[in-house]
Amino acid sequence: MPQIRRLQVAVSGLGRMGARHANHFLHRTPKAELVAAFTPEPREAAWAAEHLEPWGVKIYSDYDEMLKHTGLEAVCVATATTVHAEQTIKAIKAGKHVLCEKPLSTKLDISQQVFDTARAHPKQKVMCGFSRRFDSSYRNAYNLTKNGSIGRATILRSQTCDKYDPSGFFVAYAEFSGGIFVDCNIHDIDLALWFFSADGKGSPAVKSVVAFGVTALEPDLAKHGDVDNGVGVVEFWDGQIAYFYSSRMNAPGQHDMTEIIGTTGKLSVNANPTTGLLESHLPEGIHRDIPQNYYERFEQAFVTEAIEFTDAVLEDKPLPIDLESSVEAVKIGVALQDSLRNGKKIWFDKEGKRVDEDGQARARL
Amino acid sequence: MPQIRRLQVAVSGLGRMGARHANHFLHRTPKAELVAAFTPEPREAAWAAEHLEPWGVKIYSDYDEMLKHTGLEAVCVATATTVHAEQTIKAIKAGKHVLCEKPLSTKLDISQQVFDTARAHPKQKVMCGFSRRFDSSYRNAYNLTKNGSIGRATILRSQTCDKYDPSGFFVAYAEFSGGIFVDCNIHDIDLALWFFSADGKGSPAVKSVVAFGVTALEPDLAKHGDVDNGVGVVEFWDGQIAYFYSSRMNAPGQHDMTEIIGTTGKLSVNANPTTGLLESHLPEGIHRDIPQNYYERFEQAFVTEAIEFTDAVLEDKPLPIDLESSVEAVKIGVALQDSLRNGKKIWFDKEGKRVDEDGQARARL
Amino acid sequence: MPQIRRLQVAVSGLGRMGARHANHFLHRTPKAELVAAFTPEPREAAWAAEHLEPWGVKIYSDYDEMLKHTGLEAVCVATATTVHAEQTIKAIKAGKHVLCEKPLSTKLDISQQVFDTARAHPKQKVMCGFSRRFDSSYRNAYNLTKNGSIGRATILRSQTCDKYDPSGFFVAYAEFSGGIFVDCNIHDIDLALWFFSADGKGSPAVKSVVAFGVTALEPDLAKHGDVDNGVGVVEFWDGQIAYFYSSRMNAPGQHDMTEIIGTTGKLSVNANPTTGLLESHLPEGIHRDIPQNYYERFEQAFVTEAIEFTDAVLEDKPLPIDLESSVEAVKIGVALQDSLRNGKKIWFDKEGKRVDEDGQARARL
Amino acid sequence: MPQIRRLQVAVSGLGRMGARHANHFLHRTPKAELVAAFTPEPREAAWAAEHLEPWGVKIYSDYDEMLKHTGLEAVCVATATTVHAEQTIKAIKAGKHVLCEKPLSTKLDISQQVFDTARAHPKQKVMCGFSRRFDSSYRNAYNLTKNGSIGRATILRSQTCDKYDPSGFFVAYAEFSGGIFVDCNIHDIDLALWFFSADGKGSPAVKSVVAFGVTALEPDLAKHGDVDNGVGVVEFWDGQIAYFYSSRMNAPGQHDMTEIIGTTGKLSVNANPTTGLLESHLPEGIHRDIPQNYYERFEQAFVTEAIEFTDAVLEDKPLPIDLESSVEAVKIGVALQDSLRNGKKIWFDKEGKRVDEDGQARARL
Repeated sequence: MPQIRRLQVAVSGLGRMGARHANHFLHRTPKAELVAAFTPEPREAAWAAEHLEPWGVKIYSDYDEMLKHTGLEAVCVATATTVHAEQTIKAIKAGKHVLCEKPLSTKLDISQQVFDTARAHPKQKVMCGFSRRFDSSYRNAYNLTKNGSIGRATILRSQTCDKYDPSGFFVAYAEFSGGIFVDCNIHDIDLALWFFSADGKGSPAVKSVVAFGVTALEPDLAKHGDVDNGVGVVEFWDGQIAYFYSSRMNAPGQHDMTEIIGTTGKLSVNANPTTGLLESHLPEGIHRDIPQNYYERFEQAFVTEAIEFTDAVLEDKPLPIDLESSVEAVKIGVALQDSLRNGKKIWFDKEGKRVDEDGQARARL
Repeated sequence: MPQIRRLQVAVSGLGRMGARHANHFLHRTPKAELVAAFTPEPREAAWAAEHLEPWGVKIYSDYDEMLKHTGLEAVCVATATTVHAEQTIKAIKAGKHVLCEKPLSTKLDISQQVFDTARAHPKQKVMCGFSRRFDSSYRNAYNLTKNGSIGRATILRSQTCDKYDPSGFFVAYAEFSGGIFVDCNIHDIDLALWFFSADGKGSPAVKSVVAFGVTALEPDLAKHGDVDNGVGVVEFWDGQIAYFYSSRMNAPGQHDMTEIIGTTGKLSVNANPTTGLLESHLPEGIHRDIPQNYYERFEQAFVTEAIEFTDAVLEDKPLPIDLESSVEAVKIGVALQDSLRNGKKIWFDKEGKRVDEDGQARARL
Repeated sequence: MPQIRRLQVAVSGLGRMGARHANHFLHRTPKAELVAAFTPEPREAAWAAEHLEPWGVKIYSDYDEMLKHTGLEAVCVATATTVHAEQTIKAIKAGKHVLCEKPLSTKLDISQQVFDTARAHPKQKVMCGFSRRFDSSYRNAYNLTKNGSIGRATILRSQTCDKYDPSGFFVAYAEFSGGIFVDCNIHDIDLALWFFSADGKGSPAVKSVVAFGVTALEPDLAKHGDVDNGVGVVEFWDGQIAYFYSSRMNAPGQHDMTEIIGTTGKLSVNANPTTGLLESHLPEGIHRDIPQNYYERFEQAFVTEAIEFTDAVLEDKPLPIDLESSVEAVKIGVALQDSLRNGKKIWFDKEGKRVDEDGQARARL
Repeated sequence: MPQIRRLQVAVSGLGRMGARHANHFLHRTPKAELVAAFTPEPREAAWAAEHLEPWGVKIYSDYDEMLKHTGLEAVCVATATTVHAEQTIKAIKAGKHVLCEKPLSTKLDISQQVFDTARAHPKQKVMCGFSRRFDSSYRNAYNLTKNGSIGRATILRSQTCDKYDPSGFFVAYAEFSGGIFVDCNIHDIDLALWFFSADGKGSPAVKSVVAFGVTALEPDLAKHGDVDNGVGVVEFWDGQIAYFYSSRMNAPGQHDMTEIIGTTGKLSVNANPTTGLLESHLPEGIHRDIPQNYYERFEQAFVTEAIEFTDAVLEDKPLPIDLESSVEAVKIGVALQDSLRNGKKIWFDKEGKRVDEDGQARARL
């Protein structure tokens, strides 16, 4: 008989990403056992009846009931962004460890509440799932940065580009998403916070941000103060700059890429997007495919995320992602979105507080 | 309670590859349950006590005893090549399904015995595990070939190049490996049989083979009629040519690549080897790493192999690889190794029988 | 005897780039004849005595004298940036056609004077040599953009990254260069003006700019209000955005790259920098070199520039680059440098005039 | 007035390649002066009247007359292969230096006559123009090989693949071309002779060759004992192997590539064919173009060839290519073509003489 103790996990939300998380905990995280799942959606419940229940997973239509599932130890929150924070806070208060999909919230103050709740329960593990931190290429880049291979990391360029979805889903979703900088570039912001902390000085302090954008294909985005192409720059007090691009209209598919530029070298992740190792030499020229969505690109990273979250809980080890930085990412994303909307450059003081522009807009050199 | 029926699997041999197979069936094949494993090696048994027994896997030091494990349905044979055939035949006779590591044997007649035994037990699934057939890039290439994207597949170039192992392991191993064409290029031969059957005419019939080789780094290989670099050409009766290269001294790591050349296009798998999506821009130039061994390159293919073998057994579906072609691969590999050793071109008649050279060495055009 | 009429050309300045221009007109521009060259520098004159005089080129130490060279028709101005404008204006007034190295000047008003002088001499050809416009990869990208292959060009990302020069030359040069945005990114700005005009609406009108920068390796640059790494964003009134990066510390060499992102596709120029078609597979991994400076990257573009300038003059055809856009590039470069220095976002009205920030910093969406 | 002495050159043949050579010597070889050209073809003569005569080039319709052109010093023979040898021998006997297009002849004995004639005129420079030796990527690879970067060069793989020409030109041409191994792979053979001599031991001695081929698209090639896809292997007495592929049906264009594999590394030239630095990211995926013919790939190499031939003559320096190796290349190419036709492996003794197969076909290890 198996003598291995396995973490008892529930997944909340069985939409696109929730179903994937459920599969990862069920089949690809040996030391976890998916015991419960919550969804209020009949369509998702039907999927669960077919794919989860036969494996012994109990399906709940009430989140609070699910939290009472006997033996439940941890919850993976993968519902709509609007309820991330509420569900995370409830789970923490119920004594559960939590892996919450990004972002914690589209609002800074609510993100902060999640953080405060987690800090009040120091024995529980609470992590916001920034999947790129679990991708092997990003990790190799981080390790090279940390060991000094590129000198001091100074400039970070990063982009999140989705394939155009002609269904217009993302237009309607813009009402809730927080905008392109909070929904897409939040990953790139998180990478900047991660890589710029690689010199051991901790999270870098933001100094100013500015953002630009256009609605090239979906003018209706303007209703929600949003765009389908965004460019943002973030300057840090310690002499580092990150600049971002996000797009909802990348023709061939998903193209997320990052460059970390140091004083003695540059690391480039995914400058040459591809789905695999196949190239076709055809009469029209040479051709290759790229991933069609972020899951095709980051599937293994999500699995690693589940495995490492599980290990951190079981062995009471530090989590791979510091929750404070996930709040900081929301702060920067919200400021970029504000700058996009009001056309202004936004400043922060060294303590991280947004300040009046005129008081700060002085010569910098 | 889980209502899923899972295939009861045992793994024979817990060496390098056997341990990986055990992990795949244990943790990465949801519909399989690893229930038993066999190893006569105390070191491997110690590993199993730590990594398999806690998950409820019973460890045997006697292969025949393992075959009697209650409820056992299938065996993955991953022992040394020299006992592949014997264990496979025993398992078949004991009523088990078998996934056997490649090659079936280094001898053609023994490979044929495996095939004959399998044919006598038509309800059992017996497959030789040519892992590349489960790799997504090769599969995409195969599907493109099959749907006519490159016209008629005519030329196949394929190579298997290992990183140099200064321990000399492969020199000693040459006594048992069957030689570089049977040990390494057997994969490339299998690919030729697979891709050249994509036009629906079944396995192509070999017409002649010739091989060359050198011992660039390990002259002791000559004792076993082997080399560390081999070049071979295989001609088929139906107007197709495959040519192969194998090396034991590829500097940066594993570089297995294949080109399938059709009348209207070419497919290239792994012309640009890489471990991931990271490139380093350093003062010396631009740098990337490549896999260090075949498992780094094909890990996911091995997992898919386990999953698909399991599915084929559970659902009584055809196996992805035809056993007859695996015997044919041994026939061609052995002929190439013979050609390497005697310096002669070797001919086959249209029925697949090796024939005297003089009777065949006539003008071909 | 040759019956071909060849353009009589002089080169002014025989420094690094001037010597190259002299060679291009002397040996690689069949329809041009290099007849004269000017340099006040003894070291450059010595070089000319060895490499130009034997081919019949007359060397002058006085620019005005050179302009009087019998039969002289055109001048290539390749002196220090500080005298570009003065020499160009003199040459125009002397009735010569002029190819002037970029930028026309580091000052907007002086650039405008060049333009006004040229407009007053409409029969003479005056072009600012933005070499990238003559590069075959950029031209292919431009033609694809113009023919609609990527829909409407909406976002342009472009960078100019030099290999670090530890001699500190560029630090001293910062006194005269106009700063990194005028010296380096001027090329990228020119590309934005070019590609965004590909929809046939002419040069796009700038709406706002903002710039950031750091001195990662050379703090002394701050004396001249300059940096060694710059990030800038330029927004146009017609809903297009260009964003730029420049660096003086790119480890392996020169890496200038550009992406043009349209509503239905993206064109990428030099995402994979390389010096040629060689890759080395070595024990440390896979390695390739990249160009060490912009001339290694753009040599052929400079030759094409000389050939096409010559053809335009001989056949009285339109020049490939509109002089007005070269003034606009200076305007934008100067504004970026100002933004870098004062930390402010800078706005322009639709007529192209810089306006007070407060009057413009209103909501944009 | 110019004081430079320029080599007085004539080009024989103004077909496709001859016209290019004429342009190179006329416009891109500063120290050469194209003074004469020969063509018996009215169409070529009309081209010359427009493009060469205005530059002072005298056009001849009689080769012998051209050889008498006053002051003529060197001839570039670029006529049909069938007259290469005859014209080269005549020019040598007339006291001229000769750059002869490859191959010297499709016959070994005639190639040898060229060599013997050249040896009898030791003060004249005679070179067979294997253009790849002048390509910068190949040269970088050669220099790395020579300086030991990859240990001892042991295996060479090389291919010459043309875009399919549906006009069938190459089918008719097969009557004169000597066959695919003499016409196409002769370049690859030359590379093997070059790289395998990089260890300083001089040209390697061939031991055996074998060739295979198919007519995938043009069955009429069989009339001339030729194929549209060929695979050949050449073994050298000193423990080195070269293997070749040639094709007349490469879908996207010209793809000539080479790998040089040494005991400690591998050099790869053109594993990733491309026309430049542009990639298109389109809805169908990522796309790039490749050269459409060998001139697009090797244009600059041909120019360098003209320049270096000129320099070698003017300065009486050794030529970059040894004429003896060009005869050896013909010997190997002819043997491969013979092997293709008769299906036999062909052997050579250590003195380079072809020997009876039975006397040699013994065990080799």
